[in-house]
Amino acid sequence: MSCRRALFLGRFQPFHNGHLEALKWILEREPEVVLAIGSAQYSHSFRNPFTVGERLEMIQAVLRAENLADRVMVSVVPDTDNEHSLWVRLVVSWSPCFDKVYTNDPLSQLLFREEGFQVEGIPFHEREVLEGTRIRKLMAEGGDWEKYVHPRVAEIIKRIRGDARIAELYRLSPA
Amino acid sequence: MSCRRALFLGRFQPFHNGHLEALKWILEREPEVVLAIGSAQYSHSFRNPFTVGERLEMIQAVLRAENLADRVMVSVVPDTDNEHSLWVRLVVSWSPCFDKVYTNDPLSQLLFREEGFQVEGIPFHEREVLEGTRIRKLMAEGGDWEKYVHPRVAEIIKRIRGDARIAELYRLSPA
Amino acid sequence: MSCRRALFLGRFQPFHNGHLEALKWILEREPEVVLAIGSAQYSHSFRNPFTVGERLEMIQAVLRAENLADRVMVSVVPDTDNEHSLWVRLVVSWSPCFDKVYTNDPLSQLLFREEGFQVEGIPFHEREVLEGTRIRKLMAEGGDWEKYVHPRVAEIIKRIRGDARIAELYRLSPA
Amino acid sequence: MSCRRALFLGRFQPFHNGHLEALKWILEREPEVVLAIGSAQYSHSFRNPFTVGERLEMIQAVLRAENLADRVMVSVVPDTDNEHSLWVRLVVSWSPCFDKVYTNDPLSQLLFREEGFQVEGIPFHEREVLEGTRIRKLMAEGGDWEKYVHPRVAEIIKRIRGDARIAELYRLSPA
Amino acid sequence: MSCRRALFLGRFQPFHNGHLEALKWILEREPEVVLAIGSAQYSHSFRNPFTVGERLEMIQAVLRAENLADRVMVSVVPDTDNEHSLWVRLVVSWSPCFDKVYTNDPLSQLLFREEGFQVEGIPFHEREVLEGTRIRKLMAEGGDWEKYVHPRVAEIIKRIRGDARIAELYRLSPA
Amino acid sequence: MSCRRALFLGRFQPFHNGHLEALKWILEREPEVVLAIGSAQYSHSFRNPFTVGERLEMIQAVLRAENLADRVMVSVVPDTDNEHSLWVRLVVSWSPCFDKVYTNDPLSQLLFREEGFQVEGIPFHEREVLEGTRIRKLMAEGGDWEKYVHPRVAEIIKRIRGDARIAELYRLSPA
Repeated sequence: MSCRRALFLGRFQPFHNGHLEALKWILEREPEVVLAIGSAQYSHSFRNPFTVGERLEMIQAVLRAENLADRVMVSVVPDTDNEHSLWVRLVVSWSPCFDKVYTNDPLSQLLFREEGFQVEGIPFHEREVLEGTRIRKLMAEGGDWEKYVHPRVAEIIKRIRGDARIAELYRLSPA
Repeated sequence: MSCRRALFLGRFQPFHNGHLEALKWILEREPEVVLAIGSAQYSHSFRNPFTVGERLEMIQAVLRAENLADRVMVSVVPDTDNEHSLWVRLVVSWSPCFDKVYTNDPLSQLLFREEGFQVEGIPFHEREVLEGTRIRKLMAEGGDWEKYVHPRVAEIIKRIRGDARIAELYRLSPA
Repeated sequence: MSCRRALFLGRFQPFHNGHLEALKWILEREPEVVLAIGSAQYSHSFRNPFTVGERLEMIQAVLRAENLADRVMVSVVPDTDNEHSLWVRLVVSWSPCFDKVYTNDPLSQLLFREEGFQVEGIPFHEREVLEGTRIRKLMAEGGDWEKYVHPRVAEIIKRIRGDARIAELYRLSPA
Repeated sequence: MSCRRALFLGRFQPFHNGHLEALKWILEREPEVVLAIGSAQYSHSFRNPFTVGERLEMIQAVLRAENLADRVMVSVVPDTDNEHSLWVRLVVSWSPCFDKVYTNDPLSQLLFREEGFQVEGIPFHEREVLEGTRIRKLMAEGGDWEKYVHPRVAEIIKRIRGDARIAELYRLSPA
Repeated sequence: MSCRRALFLGRFQPFHNGHLEALKWILEREPEVVLAIGSAQYSHSFRNPFTVGERLEMIQAVLRAENLADRVMVSVVPDTDNEHSLWVRLVVSWSPCFDKVYTNDPLSQLLFREEGFQVEGIPFHEREVLEGTRIRKLMAEGGDWEKYVHPRVAEIIKRIRGDARIAELYRLSPA
Repeated sequence: MSCRRALFLGRFQPFHNGHLEALKWILEREPEVVLAIGSAQYSHSFRNPFTVGERLEMIQAVLRAENLADRVMVSVVPDTDNEHSLWVRLVVSWSPCFDKVYTNDPLSQLLFREEGFQVEGIPFHEREVLEGTRIRKLMAEGGDWEKYVHPRVAEIIKRIRGDARIAELYRLSPA
C-alpha cells in the first residue's frame, strides 16, 4: 500500500545537528517523514544515556521550534535483542505507514532490503552518525557540546542534568 | 521536578470523539499534554484491533487537523502483563516529563496515586470511554460508526480496512 | 520467492486422525508441506497438555509410519502472547520457506491474509479441529480415545502417561 | 542429593493464620523448611494484591515473632506464564536445596511428581487456602479481617494501607 | 525413562560436512538421534546468520538426500539468554525423549552433567566445530565454501543469497 | 514512608568475608538491613557461577551462624537486561520497605540517586568487591579460597561441588 511517507531511523542519543540536517535533507525529497526512535527500552548506559521519553521530548521540541511538526511523525520502537528477523515487522507495527527507508546503518539496510523495502543512504549523514559518540564524549569531559545540538535540546539536557549523567556513565564503561 | 505538563492516558482503540473532547477539556486546564497510547504491543483482537503505529497515525492526523500539535506530545507505552508495580515507572520512562495525570481508569488511578502523583478524573469522559466498545461493535455490525470519529480517523480506518478487520475479530471472540 | 511448499498450522494437542486426514488432503494438492506446531512453549494445561517435544515425537512417528516423511517438514513456532502483529513473521522465520497457508483458524487466516499470503481452508477439517477437545475429554473421563489417534500416537501417550496427566488437568480447569 | 529440607509453596496473598498453622504442622515432620513465595512478579490485582517485597516483609516479621527463623528459609519464585514445563526447574534454581514438597495445589503436585519429587498434601490446609480469598473479601468490604492474620501482618498491611488497596482492586474486578 | 535415543546439539550455522560426519558417527553407536538446533531465535549476525527456519530446511534436505530421516528427528530450542539453569529443562521440553547427550561444547557438557545426564564428546568433532566460523569467513570473502557443505545445503544458501548476507554481516562485525 | 531499614546490594558470587564485614559495618549504623541478591536469574558463568537458590542458602547459613538473622532480611532481584530505568522500581517492589541504600557500584548509585534515594558508599568495601573475582580465580586454579569465606559457605560450595563448576566455567571464558 502506498503511503507517500519515508522512515528515518535512529537512536538519537541525543538528537543532534547532524540528525536535524539529515531530516531536512530527507524532507526535500519526501512529502512526509516518520522519525523512528530505536532501542526504545534502553537508557542509562554511555551508548544509550537517555530514556525514550527524554528523547521524545527533545525531538518534539526541535520539530516545533523548526516548524517541522506538520510533516514529521515520531514513532518509538523497542529493540528485539538479537531476534533480528522480527525487527522490520516490529518497526512496521509500531510506526505509521511508510514505504521507503532512509538509514546508513548497514544492518538496518540489510534487514529492510530482505523484506522488500526500498532503502536509501543519506549522503553526508554517516559522518554525523559518528557525532553521537563524539558529543557524548564532550559531555563526559566537560567540553563544549552545546554547539552541536539545537538550543531546545541543550535546554532539556541541562534541566535533567543529562551531561552529569553521561559523565558518570562514561567513567563506568566508556564503550 | 516541575514540567507543567499533564498526562492523558488511553488505549485509543480507535481515537474517537469522546477522546478528542476529553483532550480539549484537559487543554483548557493545562498548558501542555502528553497523550500516552497504552497497551502498545497488542493488536488484532476485538478489544485492541489496531497496531500502535495505526493508532499513532490516527492521532497525529487529528492533532494536525485540529491545530493541537503545538500543545500535545504523543508517547507510546507497552503493557507490563500484570507486573503492575512496574507500570507507572514504565510510563514515566517512555513519556516526556509530566507532573499530573488525567484518567478515569481505576487501576491507573490507584497505581499513580501510590507513586505520589496527583490524579484527576475527567468528568464526562467515563461515558465516552464506553464508546470504544460501542464504536467497535458498530463497525463489526456494519452500523454507522463514522459519525463518532474524526473524519481523518475514518479515512485511515477505511484505507487500512479496519472495519473489516474488526468485523472478523468480533466473530472470533466478541469480548 | 516461490518455494512450492504449503504451510499446515495447528497446535496438535494431540495429533489425531482428523489432522492426519487433513494432511493427506493437502498433500494431494501440494508437492510439499511444512507442518508447523504452534503454541510451542505451552504445556500442562487441559487445552495444551503436551510439551512441544512430545508433540514432535508423536508427529514424526506418524510421518514415518505413513511414509510421509519425504514430503513433510515439521517446524515449531512459539506463541507471541497477543503481540499478533509479529506472529506471521515469527512463523516465517521459524519455518522452511512456504508460499501458501492451509488453516481453518479465523485469526490465522486474517493475519496471513493481511501480510499478503494466499490462505485456504480445509473443507472437512473444521469438524476435526473440534476433535482435539473431544479426544482430550475422552482421555479425562477414561473413554475410548485410542481409536481417534494413530497407533503410534496412542503408544507414546501411554508411555508418558499422557491420559493420566490430562485427567488431572481436566479436574483442575476443564476449559 | 539429600538436603533434609522440605518445600512449602504458596502465593501468601497475604500470609494468614492458615499458612502459619500449615507451616508449623510441616515443621513437626521436617527438620527444615523452604517457604517459597510464588507468582513473585505480580501485584495490584484482587487475586495478587501485594508485591513480593511486601509479602517477604510480612513473612519475615512472623518468622521472627514466632521464633521460626532458625528452621525456615524464604525464597521467591516468579511465575512462568503458562510455560509450565519450566516451572519446577525454576523453583529449584531459585530456592535452597530441598527434597520433598508440601502443597495442596493440584497443578504443582502434578508438575513436581512428573519431575520425580515426593509430594505431600497438607491435611487441613485446603480449607485454609480458601481463606486467602475470604480474607481479601473481608478487607474489601471493611469486615473484621485482622483476626485471621498474625498481629505483625496486620500491622504491615495497615501501614501500607493494603486494605484500602484491596478494596479498590475488588471494585475493579472481584475475581 | 529409557528412550534409546541420543541428543546431538548444535547451532548449525550452517549445517556442514563436519556436522554430517559427526551425525553419522553417532548413528553408528545409537539407534536413533534427536538433532537439536540451538539458539533458535537468533539470525542475521555473523555468528548466527541463518534463521532457524532456514537451518531446518537445510538439515531436512540433507537427511532426505542421505537417507537418514528414518533415524533422526529434528528439534528446535531457543536460547535462555544466560538463564543457564533453565536451559537443560528447555531442551528436554522442546525435544523428543532422549537419554544421552553428544556434544563437545563445554558449557552444555557441564549443564547436562549437573542434571544427571550421560554426556559424551565426539572425538574428531572439535576441529569440525571450528569449521563453522571458517566456512562463514570463506563465504564473506568469496572463497570456495561450497565443498565444505552438502550440495543440497549449498543450493539452499545460494537460493536465499545467504553468502551475500554473510558478507554484509561480516563487514558489520566480524566476531 | 520511613521504614528505618537500609538496603545492602550485591550479587554475592559467592558471599565472602568482605561482604560479611560490610554487612556488620552497616549494622553498626542502621537498625535493620535488607540484603538484596541481584542478577537473580543468572548462573553458570564465571562471573555469576551460583544460582540464586544456592546464594540464598549460603547467606541464610551465615546469618544464622553469626546471629544476624534478627536484623537482616534477604530479598532477591532479577536483572532488567539493560532496561536500567526500571531497575530501581524493581528493587523496591521485590524488597521489604527501605529508605537508604548502601552500595559502591557506580551505576546503582546513579540510578538510586536519580530516584531520590539517599545513597552511601561502604568505605573499605570496594577492595572487598574485587575479592569476588579473586576468590573465583582461586577456586578455578585450585588455590586456597576457603579462608576468604565463612566456614558455612565453604561447606555448601563443597557439597554442591561449586569449585569444580567454577574451574570449568573459568576455562570456558575467564572474563
